[in-house]
Amino acid sequence: MAGALAGNGHEVALGSRDPQAALARDDVNQQTGTTLAGWSGASPEVRIVTNAEAAAHGATVWNAASGAASLGALESAGAERLDGKILVDITNPIVRSPDGVTLDPIGTDSVAERIQRAFPTARVVKALNTVTAVVMVDPASLAGGDHTLPICGNDDDAKREVTSWLTDWFGWRDVLDIGDLTAARAQEAYLLFWLRLMQTSGSSVVSTKVVR
Amino acid sequence: MAGALAGNGHEVALGSRDPQAALARDDVNQQTGTTLAGWSGASPEVRIVTNAEAAAHGATVWNAASGAASLGALESAGAERLDGKILVDITNPIVRSPDGVTLDPIGTDSVAERIQRAFPTARVVKALNTVTAVVMVDPASLAGGDHTLPICGNDDDAKREVTSWLTDWFGWRDVLDIGDLTAARAQEAYLLFWLRLMQTSGSSVVSTKVVR
Repeated sequence: MAGALAGNGHEVALGSRDPQAALARDDVNQQTGTTLAGWSGASPEVRIVTNAEAAAHGATVWNAASGAASLGALESAGAERLDGKILVDITNPIVRSPDGVTLDPIGTDSVAERIQRAFPTARVVKALNTVTAVVMVDPASLAGGDHTLPICGNDDDAKREVTSWLTDWFGWRDVLDIGDLTAARAQEAYLLFWLRLMQTSGSSVVSTKVVR
Repeated sequence: MAGALAGNGHEVALGSRDPQAALARDDVNQQTGTTLAGWSGASPEVRIVTNAEAAAHGATVWNAASGAASLGALESAGAERLDGKILVDITNPIVRSPDGVTLDPIGTDSVAERIQRAFPTARVVKALNTVTAVVMVDPASLAGGDHTLPICGNDDDAKREVTSWLTDWFGWRDVLDIGDLTAARAQEAYLLFWLRLMQTSGSSVVSTKVVR
């Protein structure tokens, strides 16, 4: 996401709890095929900074932390640095229990609503949690882009703005506003279905088209 | 469903806790536009009987009770009358709470699994819970049928048989086996998403096509 935003001409700062520790880790990212340090070396246009510095930098904040880590990451960013900004929440609260993969919360709450409650002056828009990273920024890589991206949120202007970004920058053709932020319960619960589609198709490059 | 099965040449018995009370009720069904008595008068080929009589009658059992009422309805049908039979579970465990519509169970269990645990020798197949009644039996009424029906269950032969019925009798073109019966958690959780699609589109004639 950071690379795709930079590729669209934006100045991107990528936030971490501890940038030096993150750059020292040898985990290979499945999407980039390299470590964060390796990716960063090839992506000098994206600065890797603290969460607070990233939130201070951005006119818009994209939350791509894990669902469970999101509130902590945003608290370390600082509420005053989120005030009035569009906050695009990409996350899913996946948890692995002895009974299998599930989500927490599920059904009567969502990560997006928790973020909105914790940061009431942020303009939270839930989007992009329903597809894998490569499809988020290149929907045409799957079926020529003939599938649907649901979004939701309480701020209609913010949803319109995010929709125009998704359309103009990444080429999404069917961004569907499914309602206020309580719809994030549905949009996150969908992930359980998506995980089965991924297992069935043997690929994370899978999505759904809403037929109406 | 009963009418559509009868229309395909099957002898259908429709089970009720109390057939006489059901026929005396003046509720108008949204799909048929009439009361059960009115529908029954126009559908003499479908007998309305007790749950036990319906289960004894059928080579196959279709559970179209509400999610919350399903275990009770099947217990009144009698475990011995379900033994070895394919049991197609169409239900969703919708509950209306002060926090909004949700499902119970959700995430770590499903109605279909509860039924399977209660009736271990029934061959439970989860199917058709993801679309409204008219679409279940006439998928071509939406986008010419270009959308997907997920199914799941522990018995591969039962899934293949149900898939052939859905294809041959109702014209489903894309029946997608998403796994064993634990996938019913995903297939039921999808309903939360579907309810938002219904609200957004203003029609229950809405579905999704899996793009892979």
